[in-house]
Amino acid sequence: MKKIAISLGDLNGIGLEIALKAHDEVKKVCHPIYCINENMLGWGSALLGLDIPLDFEIRDCGKVFEIEAGVCSAEAGESSYDSFITAVALAKSNEVSGIVTLPINKESWAMAGLEYKGHTDALSDLLGCEAIMMLGCEAMFTILYTHHIPLCDVPHEIKTKKLKPFLLKVYEELGEDKIAVLGLNPHAGDNGVIGDEEEEIKKAITKANNFLEREVFVGPFVPDMAFTKTNRDKFRYFVCMYHDQGLIPLKALYFEESINVSLNAGIVRTSVDHGTAFDIAYKDANPSTLSYINAIKEAVKLATAKKLLTF
Amino acid sequence: MKKIAISLGDLNGIGLEIALKAHDEVKKVCHPIYCINENMLGWGSALLGLDIPLDFEIRDCGKVFEIEAGVCSAEAGESSYDSFITAVALAKSNEVSGIVTLPINKESWAMAGLEYKGHTDALSDLLGCEAIMMLGCEAMFTILYTHHIPLCDVPHEIKTKKLKPFLLKVYEELGEDKIAVLGLNPHAGDNGVIGDEEEEIKKAITKANNFLEREVFVGPFVPDMAFTKTNRDKFRYFVCMYHDQGLIPLKALYFEESINVSLNAGIVRTSVDHGTAFDIAYKDANPSTLSYINAIKEAVKLATAKKLLTF
Repeated sequence: MKKIAISLGDLNGIGLEIALKAHDEVKKVCHPIYCINENMLGWGSALLGLDIPLDFEIRDCGKVFEIEAGVCSAEAGESSYDSFITAVALAKSNEVSGIVTLPINKESWAMAGLEYKGHTDALSDLLGCEAIMMLGCEAMFTILYTHHIPLCDVPHEIKTKKLKPFLLKVYEELGEDKIAVLGLNPHAGDNGVIGDEEEEIKKAITKANNFLEREVFVGPFVPDMAFTKTNRDKFRYFVCMYHDQGLIPLKALYFEESINVSLNAGIVRTSVDHGTAFDIAYKDANPSTLSYINAIKEAVKLATAKKLLTF
Repeated sequence: MKKIAISLGDLNGIGLEIALKAHDEVKKVCHPIYCINENMLGWGSALLGLDIPLDFEIRDCGKVFEIEAGVCSAEAGESSYDSFITAVALAKSNEVSGIVTLPINKESWAMAGLEYKGHTDALSDLLGCEAIMMLGCEAMFTILYTHHIPLCDVPHEIKTKKLKPFLLKVYEELGEDKIAVLGLNPHAGDNGVIGDEEEEIKKAITKANNFLEREVFVGPFVPDMAFTKTNRDKFRYFVCMYHDQGLIPLKALYFEESINVSLNAGIVRTSVDHGTAFDIAYKDANPSTLSYINAIKEAVKLATAKKLLTF
């Protein structure tokens, strides 16, 4: 069974409650190692009124501080960062097959002097990589070729030279046989009548498939037909040319279940797609564990699927 | 009860079968007037093995020709155009409150020497208007501010001067109290960090609301949050900045049920969102009448809602 390191996120939020409550479910699919200070685990679980499972294996890290439910603090920020880098180190040294991150609070990170915008940003810096954003759930994943750039800059990014290696990286990480690639323009350009970036996309698909010697990538799809039920039954992974092309249908269809995945990070990393939920932390509000359990399952799947290409 | 004129579309396709089979349902919501040649109606219904309902009121038009199921022909093209212009004329002279169009075949129109790309194109020419495209169903409608242009041209179109009158036209046609307006960029620009077109959108919204002296338009919404279940419960109409921003979520969620509406055409016009289905015409295949019935209902609703603004 694959070992997965779990960073607990902000201990003033709902991370610990989710980890404790989901443990029985999680250990069915992996061998979890929780990155948390032993005393903080004892204190947090007492506050939650939850028993610590006997097989709750931890990697002791970080300092002791006072848990204050729903409060931003430098100590909480530092503690969640310590948990995160401990998990990353376990993955880098191959002691675990991947990591799953519970939510941190950006303000607490800033109070602790950490200038990252979030996990993905920190990960890219720590591992010197350019992480690829993938978001989705069991039913459907969207992989973002471009993400946080103005829409007007997107068309300039659609170049075969850049898209082909991107596609190969995606294949390397996912090891999937069939991956849909979307066009950019309405009706995928209608043979050049409504934009011509699809020519670059077509070439990138052909070149990537030629390199792999098989038809892994299919497209460019007419964007508004890509996510119909019929097409979702045929494909699970969709390479999208821009942020909203992927995230609009994902959130319309599967808002609650989604998770966040960093591809091409050097390690397997998945994350819940929600925040610290300070408003319900330590309030016996029974936060949903769905996104977390989905994140664990996907981490295991990715750790199993990972292929290595040389290019 | 509102009178609605129905153009039968291509008589070599499934239009007549749908009209005959849905008649009982249709007459519950409107007084339908079918634009068809009387002899062709007799022949077509005999071929289908369907009785002509006693209250199937027609407006006789067009010539007699040989029905050939699933075949493109100049005669079929001419006949469907005659049915269409008869329905348009009834609406223009206020004999009916609106029209619903069944699908025509573009190739047959071309064979008949008609150079229009379709109904919307013909309508704009016949009525000297600039029709606004709206697509959707009972649960959700998307109104396209731009549609069949390359994505790279979209950002240049986002100007307050042009968007404000567009919004007012939409209000005039729909008479709705709450209409969502989407942003253009990821996270609606994140306060200018990822694009600044949202400033133009904000101004257009404010100016349109000021003109109307009420808060009809709400936004600009973060595009990937606009179509979540929670937001769809709050809004039925969504003004989208580009084709796929509206049609991707619509087809992901409601592919089968959708209809096509021409706003700002001078007359009320709705249409099914499917084609002639030549492959199943006159084959007792029981084509779905859902999109057609939805189109009828929306035509009645629009005919009732229409407001007149002076600007």
